[in-house]
Amino acid sequence: MSKVAIVMGSQSDWPTMQNAALMLKQLGVEYDAQVVSAHRTPELLTEFAVTAADKGIEVIIAGAGGAAHLPGMIAAHTHLPVFGVPVKSRTLNGLDSLLSIVQMPKGVAVGTLAIGDAGAANAGLMAAQIIALHDEAVRSAVQDFRRSQTQKVLSNQKLELPE
Amino acid sequence: MSKVAIVMGSQSDWPTMQNAALMLKQLGVEYDAQVVSAHRTPELLTEFAVTAADKGIEVIIAGAGGAAHLPGMIAAHTHLPVFGVPVKSRTLNGLDSLLSIVQMPKGVAVGTLAIGDAGAANAGLMAAQIIALHDEAVRSAVQDFRRSQTQKVLSNQKLELPE
Amino acid sequence: MSKVAIVMGSQSDWPTMQNAALMLKQLGVEYDAQVVSAHRTPELLTEFAVTAADKGIEVIIAGAGGAAHLPGMIAAHTHLPVFGVPVKSRTLNGLDSLLSIVQMPKGVAVGTLAIGDAGAANAGLMAAQIIALHDEAVRSAVQDFRRSQTQKVLSNQKLELPE
Amino acid sequence: MSKVAIVMGSQSDWPTMQNAALMLKQLGVEYDAQVVSAHRTPELLTEFAVTAADKGIEVIIAGAGGAAHLPGMIAAHTHLPVFGVPVKSRTLNGLDSLLSIVQMPKGVAVGTLAIGDAGAANAGLMAAQIIALHDEAVRSAVQDFRRSQTQKVLSNQKLELPE
Amino acid sequence: MSKVAIVMGSQSDWPTMQNAALMLKQLGVEYDAQVVSAHRTPELLTEFAVTAADKGIEVIIAGAGGAAHLPGMIAAHTHLPVFGVPVKSRTLNGLDSLLSIVQMPKGVAVGTLAIGDAGAANAGLMAAQIIALHDEAVRSAVQDFRRSQTQKVLSNQKLELPE
Amino acid sequence: MSKVAIVMGSQSDWPTMQNAALMLKQLGVEYDAQVVSAHRTPELLTEFAVTAADKGIEVIIAGAGGAAHLPGMIAAHTHLPVFGVPVKSRTLNGLDSLLSIVQMPKGVAVGTLAIGDAGAANAGLMAAQIIALHDEAVRSAVQDFRRSQTQKVLSNQKLELPE
Amino acid sequence: MSKVAIVMGSQSDWPTMQNAALMLKQLGVEYDAQVVSAHRTPELLTEFAVTAADKGIEVIIAGAGGAAHLPGMIAAHTHLPVFGVPVKSRTLNGLDSLLSIVQMPKGVAVGTLAIGDAGAANAGLMAAQIIALHDEAVRSAVQDFRRSQTQKVLSNQKLELPE
Amino acid sequence: MSKVAIVMGSQSDWPTMQNAALMLKQLGVEYDAQVVSAHRTPELLTEFAVTAADKGIEVIIAGAGGAAHLPGMIAAHTHLPVFGVPVKSRTLNGLDSLLSIVQMPKGVAVGTLAIGDAGAANAGLMAAQIIALHDEAVRSAVQDFRRSQTQKVLSNQKLELPE
Repeated sequence: MSKVAIVMGSQSDWPTMQNAALMLKQLGVEYDAQVVSAHRTPELLTEFAVTAADKGIEVIIAGAGGAAHLPGMIAAHTHLPVFGVPVKSRTLNGLDSLLSIVQMPKGVAVGTLAIGDAGAANAGLMAAQIIALHDEAVRSAVQDFRRSQTQKVLSNQKLELPE
Repeated sequence: MSKVAIVMGSQSDWPTMQNAALMLKQLGVEYDAQVVSAHRTPELLTEFAVTAADKGIEVIIAGAGGAAHLPGMIAAHTHLPVFGVPVKSRTLNGLDSLLSIVQMPKGVAVGTLAIGDAGAANAGLMAAQIIALHDEAVRSAVQDFRRSQTQKVLSNQKLELPE
Repeated sequence: MSKVAIVMGSQSDWPTMQNAALMLKQLGVEYDAQVVSAHRTPELLTEFAVTAADKGIEVIIAGAGGAAHLPGMIAAHTHLPVFGVPVKSRTLNGLDSLLSIVQMPKGVAVGTLAIGDAGAANAGLMAAQIIALHDEAVRSAVQDFRRSQTQKVLSNQKLELPE
Repeated sequence: MSKVAIVMGSQSDWPTMQNAALMLKQLGVEYDAQVVSAHRTPELLTEFAVTAADKGIEVIIAGAGGAAHLPGMIAAHTHLPVFGVPVKSRTLNGLDSLLSIVQMPKGVAVGTLAIGDAGAANAGLMAAQIIALHDEAVRSAVQDFRRSQTQKVLSNQKLELPE
Repeated sequence: MSKVAIVMGSQSDWPTMQNAALMLKQLGVEYDAQVVSAHRTPELLTEFAVTAADKGIEVIIAGAGGAAHLPGMIAAHTHLPVFGVPVKSRTLNGLDSLLSIVQMPKGVAVGTLAIGDAGAANAGLMAAQIIALHDEAVRSAVQDFRRSQTQKVLSNQKLELPE
Repeated sequence: MSKVAIVMGSQSDWPTMQNAALMLKQLGVEYDAQVVSAHRTPELLTEFAVTAADKGIEVIIAGAGGAAHLPGMIAAHTHLPVFGVPVKSRTLNGLDSLLSIVQMPKGVAVGTLAIGDAGAANAGLMAAQIIALHDEAVRSAVQDFRRSQTQKVLSNQKLELPE
Repeated sequence: MSKVAIVMGSQSDWPTMQNAALMLKQLGVEYDAQVVSAHRTPELLTEFAVTAADKGIEVIIAGAGGAAHLPGMIAAHTHLPVFGVPVKSRTLNGLDSLLSIVQMPKGVAVGTLAIGDAGAANAGLMAAQIIALHDEAVRSAVQDFRRSQTQKVLSNQKLELPE
Repeated sequence: MSKVAIVMGSQSDWPTMQNAALMLKQLGVEYDAQVVSAHRTPELLTEFAVTAADKGIEVIIAGAGGAAHLPGMIAAHTHLPVFGVPVKSRTLNGLDSLLSIVQMPKGVAVGTLAIGDAGAANAGLMAAQIIALHDEAVRSAVQDFRRSQTQKVLSNQKLELPE
């Protein structure tokens, strides 16, 4: 049973949001991913958010672009921690997505990650870090991942000017 | 029976949003105003938006600040025209509110007005202009208002340097 | 006879603004589209805006980029509802177009949509939603469109990681 | 007879725009100042701009805030050089005014000055510099003004830390 | 023993960050709060972050302004979930703080909240929501808080124009 | 003898700035164009600016990108009207160029045009409009140009949806 | 004899720039401070910058606001390291000052500090750090300052909620 | 032995940062370049910064993108002058990198250069200018470089319109 749900406003957000899925897969955390549009399927959004806790989901990752209402509206319907990923928008480079997600009012919170691919991957990492608080296997996987990326930097520090 | 509904995310938006009410009152258009929070009362939002058309409402004005999801989420639940007023926010001067409201995806529209008092007043004016398409009294009131503000400028053009 | 007029500052805005035309066509609303430049044909602008109501036009959609004065100047000459579409500009991505259109002073209103294609399509949708207030066929078309886009999301929710 | 006309969108722009008037007065250039609102008195705007050249006006200074259409629309109606002053707006500090004025399309030009008081004063200075091309008295006044402000800096360079 | 640590770059961030403390107190979650400056006490930062997990801390909240490096640098040293609060800065209103915190590279994540007081309160709420995943008392407290703020909106919806 | 001088900070600005040259050529105004770098050839800048008036130059057009100091520094050395063209920069799209040029302090003015090609063309147009104040041939050319671009819009208003 | 020169565009920059002076005084580094306006005293600027090295100056600190050309123009005339302090501007909060100073083209460099007081103090610190490379007393003073500010944080970490 | 160290957050910053290396090479200043990630190798960062002075390094150049913490965190650990290069980021064009680097709090300074290639080259130039204070060969090289780029502009000022 999946402890992490990944939702996004549109199929076109998947190339960004799959970075969350890949990170979770790499860390051994099961997840479900689906499209839930705040504006085109508001009932589905409500139903998804209201029932998530009872289905055993512990963390929700939501990605959206432009006037990105999905993460905040899911947070409005659940007490589970919700992470928002601002998808890079065509006209304003994701600054609109970022501000629409992060500037939530007091009382309903969304933990916001960076715009785009890095943010999506880090949303997966955040979810794993939370699962890891009570799951030793995931904790080890997170620590291994962190160590391995440290190693990757350390073993590849040489820089050379082109001739 | 009111043809225009004014909603806003919080009591603290009323000093801004009352400019919509004042404009409608001046133009002889009845309205209802209430607080509906997208994040704190999402069920109320859904119920409000889903039933608005059957109650005889023709135009909805929604004001919100920060990650302003109210106008877009109302538009997601109704085929009535929805106008959004970005309320000036404490930290980013309403730029966050503006982008959160205006950058809606294709298929669910919000007509967005200026940030703050002027935008709220103009949301009331827009609503009246729409009512006026099939209501001669409101059309006259709109035309009178427009003429009177033209007159006000014309009769007060003198500018003098302080001695 | 067309109830909706689409105008834009330049032929080069048509690839964006045709999304308004396509939306109206899809919803069965007749429209006229033409180039009216605020800066290069100001007399045409005045004549267009002043006579629009008498020609039976009920809603005006105006698109422009950069220092985008067309929507606001049309609104200055008519009591019909005017919707503005900020066309993406070459240098500032349409932020200049957006602010030039949306930040109208109290007393002359422009309902502003998102920057670019989505905004143009939604301007068409807004116009149809207003026509729909007194036209059952258009109301059905709007509702069908909204339902069909909901269905499209619901029937296409599967997301899969590349092998 | 005045060679410079100062116009502004509203009485509330006068505290900013009087800096243009004061500069012109200081440089011995006659001017007329009045309110002309692009949105509330569009016919007056057209009439003003169309007749300006025949009245002997050589330079037009136009100040406006928010969706600031006044300078560009005046430029659309005349071959006289037009200078725009972005008035500081309440919500976006004049960034909206600046972009609305400066980002004119090819073929209709507005020479834009800084936001606020300094910009207004410099619009007056620019006008005088243009008049000075064919008016020796004004040229002397401009050169004297420039020299005197250089002197003011040179004679007041001392800086001391508070005890 | 505290499960949540609140750190901030300077005593001057406390008026903002105490909103996190107040929220945790209201939800019955113990916390420790202290000043840890990324730039002035980098060794303390490292020691704090490296030992946090072993001290039983489960969630870290870090607030900072300007070039806000504290949240990201703590995240670099721990596998615990870290939440960042952009403190409103004097010159750029917290936009610098926000971007410095949220735009983390892939592999080290910070869940970012809104700029200022609301963000700080929501960081406390996020921490409680994570604790609540395995603590029924906190879960009840979170749910009660959410219900009570819904009630507060519902029981105070009346808006009236000033006479 | 040329009445207009076009200068720019680098050869790489010429593709933008040649639009000023083309406009002046089209309007029958002679000009000289050269590279003058504020940062790499400051003595040349001073000499150019100080001697311009005596060489018969009446208007100076200066284009630069990034930290664009050329227009303002030329204005510091001459009483001739100076127009600045913000060249689109690689990293910030010309917003840095625009602010560096337009935000001049009181007492030294630069008339700023739009970022990029349109701004350069309009700088040429502005120069011609100033020359035209005392040169009937140029005035006719400006008026013809303006009329012809109006005609171009009027004769090309048809817009058609792709089949 | 002073090794550090502090210059600024106007007397009104002194409240900001005195923070550089205070820092240098605290670190035992002599300095000279004076007003040098890029736009109002360009000859003085040239003379100051060209002669600085011969007078024994090793580091130059230059503060300016708005279209802030002073630091870059000084750098154009000297091979000494130049540090720029963006003074907070009235309309755009110093974003214009920052971009005007930092976005220098390849070949003429300005090391830019934060907007406002903190940036001015840090410009003084940078100058001292450079002097310290060959001056043991200043090196000790810098290290003492750094240690003392670390101590100040460490001895004042307690935070308490108001009763 | 190298007097200048160039560090950057990731191999992917090298195409930008090699401009610093090329400039130093051209000016005859030895340097070392390596990857040091603030977030992935924080211990390496500390060790690098703490030991730099003892290894004979006099100037440190640090480049990073997005939430760019590297320059500031290095400055937190050393009394050597540190220069930061904002690397252009994928989503916000380097504005996030710039603000994350430049907006340092009082007491820990980073001299910030322009975003991207020009900034990296100028960081190399700044380092050389500092070395040059006590190294005549480098001083000559800097002066030659500056003269040669002046010559390059002077000998290539011709601009011609395409036929």
